[in-house]
Amino acid sequence: MKQNLVSIVSGATRGIGSKIRDELLLSGYSVIYIGSNDDSVVKNQPRIKLNHGQFAKGISINFKGWPTWVDTTWSQFICRNGKIETKIESNDLMAGFDKKQYRLDLLVNCAGITQTTAAIKANTNEMADIMNVNFMSSVSLTQLALKQMIRNTKLHGHRGKIVNIASVLGDSSSNIIVPGTAMYSASKAAMIQYNRVLSEELKRLSIDVQTISPGLVESTDMIKTLDPEIQQKLREKLPNGELTSVNGIIAAMGLKNLA
Amino acid sequence: MKQNLVSIVSGATRGIGSKIRDELLLSGYSVIYIGSNDDSVVKNQPRIKLNHGQFAKGISINFKGWPTWVDTTWSQFICRNGKIETKIESNDLMAGFDKKQYRLDLLVNCAGITQTTAAIKANTNEMADIMNVNFMSSVSLTQLALKQMIRNTKLHGHRGKIVNIASVLGDSSSNIIVPGTAMYSASKAAMIQYNRVLSEELKRLSIDVQTISPGLVESTDMIKTLDPEIQQKLREKLPNGELTSVNGIIAAMGLKNLA
Repeated sequence: MKQNLVSIVSGATRGIGSKIRDELLLSGYSVIYIGSNDDSVVKNQPRIKLNHGQFAKGISINFKGWPTWVDTTWSQFICRNGKIETKIESNDLMAGFDKKQYRLDLLVNCAGITQTTAAIKANTNEMADIMNVNFMSSVSLTQLALKQMIRNTKLHGHRGKIVNIASVLGDSSSNIIVPGTAMYSASKAAMIQYNRVLSEELKRLSIDVQTISPGLVESTDMIKTLDPEIQQKLREKLPNGELTSVNGIIAAMGLKNLA
Repeated sequence: MKQNLVSIVSGATRGIGSKIRDELLLSGYSVIYIGSNDDSVVKNQPRIKLNHGQFAKGISINFKGWPTWVDTTWSQFICRNGKIETKIESNDLMAGFDKKQYRLDLLVNCAGITQTTAAIKANTNEMADIMNVNFMSSVSLTQLALKQMIRNTKLHGHRGKIVNIASVLGDSSSNIIVPGTAMYSASKAAMIQYNRVLSEELKRLSIDVQTISPGLVESTDMIKTLDPEIQQKLREKLPNGELTSVNGIIAAMGLKNLA
């Protein structure tokens, strides 16, 4: 029963993350989606009809406040048909649901904030925010999910999967360099390299770690904030000059192999 | 007069950093060396005979405490012949010396702490320390130095250079992955990618940004803390299985072009 498979998606109240969340719900997964505050989690809840046993839960975590959020409780909202049914305060990702019945099988690290500041002008607050949201929080969320996945394996004999949405700007082999994105590019490079080492460490546990580095993705904040001239330059460097589609990212996640 | 050229070296009270600092002094540069606390800066001061007009100054900055150190004053120790001559409290890197006479021409970001913890076990303190020392502090130090170098160009018409000591573990094209170094590798990948973007941004200012990614370097903390079995595996992946020498790193810095 696929509804007993649970996925977590961060950055899931907007952009790529919300589309991935909704696709997962449509494919039958139960979903825990993470947004940056209560209001956003409640307002941007999924409007998808759930199957019997399938759940959708939103968790409000301020990733900018890393590491404070790691050891506190988070507001969690169980929702159905556009209504909040229950609100829980807990630091357990699976709170509200029986871990023997439901298995955490997928974490999608998708939360991210963009940047358009010259390196010399960025202040420490901005630098900390980008690194905390784009990288440090994904590491801590990964740790929390991994602990649950390792327990899963003992309970259910079922491995898990971690998918990280990085960026072509963090991929040093891409040779795509965009002025104004030094800290953003750094945070994504950190994510890519961290997950290469993590993947090696997790081999013996049969937990997959996958990192996807999309180019410019259609209808995202990056597209909205990036200087049109730089966008054009970036497009020229992309294969066929084409934007990455969210469906392409979802296809790259290879979820078929999971269910 | 080379003694009027000033270099800053972080992580300069031990390991690679202290050797780079001493080589710079021997080659005639004035040097500002940064260590993590007063005691270390005073105890590990250079023992090199200085030329007329050449200076050595140690600054005590706790990089783990990023971003707090950026907006506070630092203890600065002007030293000569193994003695502290003056102690200054200031947040000006060039404090104690006339900026019209001396030009900041070189920053070497060398500060770094190593790691041997499985990703799942690292706690947030350890993760923050590694990122703050290895990456965030090098960014803030770079910003401070850059502002001085840009003023230099106006005063002296002389460009500057920034050299970043990263690591083969942060270089995603190297295919060298060492379990236990996820955050370390991430911090160095962040450094590499940040500086690629910075370099692009600084092209019009004629300030060079160079990043060196050494393999295992002889007689460093990395060598001392790394599991011998992993060291062996790492050596097998290195060209000729050879350790990187500090002299090799200094040669790679290409300082001849600067003076």
